[in-house]
Amino acid sequence: MNNKKKIPNATMKRLPLYYRFFKNSEKSGVDRVSSREISEALDIDSATIRRDFSYFGELGRKGYGYNVKSLLKFFMEHIQGNQKRNVAIIGAGNLGSALLNYKFSNINDRMNVVAAFDNNSSIVGTTINDTMVHHSDEIEKMAKDHGIDVAILTLPAEVSQEMAERLEAAGIKGILNFTPMRLDVSDGIYVHNIDLSVELQALFFYMKHI
Amino acid sequence: MNNKKKIPNATMKRLPLYYRFFKNSEKSGVDRVSSREISEALDIDSATIRRDFSYFGELGRKGYGYNVKSLLKFFMEHIQGNQKRNVAIIGAGNLGSALLNYKFSNINDRMNVVAAFDNNSSIVGTTINDTMVHHSDEIEKMAKDHGIDVAILTLPAEVSQEMAERLEAAGIKGILNFTPMRLDVSDGIYVHNIDLSVELQALFFYMKHI
Repeated sequence: MNNKKKIPNATMKRLPLYYRFFKNSEKSGVDRVSSREISEALDIDSATIRRDFSYFGELGRKGYGYNVKSLLKFFMEHIQGNQKRNVAIIGAGNLGSALLNYKFSNINDRMNVVAAFDNNSSIVGTTINDTMVHHSDEIEKMAKDHGIDVAILTLPAEVSQEMAERLEAAGIKGILNFTPMRLDVSDGIYVHNIDLSVELQALFFYMKHI
Repeated sequence: MNNKKKIPNATMKRLPLYYRFFKNSEKSGVDRVSSREISEALDIDSATIRRDFSYFGELGRKGYGYNVKSLLKFFMEHIQGNQKRNVAIIGAGNLGSALLNYKFSNINDRMNVVAAFDNNSSIVGTTINDTMVHHSDEIEKMAKDHGIDVAILTLPAEVSQEMAERLEAAGIKGILNFTPMRLDVSDGIYVHNIDLSVELQALFFYMKHI
């Protein structure tokens, strides 16, 4: 690969899907996968997959497929890079606490959980798994002082839009959103949604189907 | 629709997203939506949406769009059914507690959180949001007595495979797996994985690009 800047936007949007699929393949002990297998698993047509993967270099061979470990290595080296992400957890209730205690396997060395924030005076000033819970009023100052660029939103849905706007103004570039709200932010900030109701409904639908 | 078995896997995966979108449209008093509107809201291309919806029967008309109430009725009658799911939360630590307190919007009326289970004697016997935490030894008996068919796994990764086998033997048909382990179970049980490391990695990849 000559220049990662050349990877088109549409390809980048599919990258997390590819990454998730390859990571799961690796965990299942699979060495290589064909574009047809990727196509069936992700419902992306094979031609699109081959075009996307051509940007990643010579990682596939006709009649062989893609080597799982090589692809994952490429993703880490050329896309993630060595950049460390400074992460803040916004909302230190049960879910926020769970994330502070969570063992983020594989990516621990590429992230730094700088701080948690909450409004609840009974937890502000405490530490959870060595991370201090600060009052939400300090978000802007802390974001600037510590170069926080990622926020994980685990606060009540009704205050999430207001918080997203504050985070954007504070220079945050990525939000992992656990609230059921769809956040209205500008193009310069990327929101990745995990909606637990939708995930559980997905399971119920599937169970009906099998 | 002749046979729900024919709905492709990839379409099934998008169903919860469609469901949520239509549910929100209904709440906002919207009668019908076009595939373009769905496309923009969910970031799924229009052709894929039209193909997906063709499996649901004659619910859309060219130049008219999709009738919100008909679609929701179809989803509930043909996919969810009237069946209520009896859910157990396996592991009542921070994440389990968060889920016990979580407001599962839209699907609360189709699920019944029967019990939580843990081995930790300091929380066994307590209640979290009106749900009792039982000792894990009681899983098999409780599953039988209360018809539990869904388990949400929020326990340490290293004991998750053993637990999955116990759950399968106890008649559980669906698992929402929050552990990073890929569970080895038979075809009769469906596992839906939420791997928080993978989700966060997906966010980091995307941020590298924008």
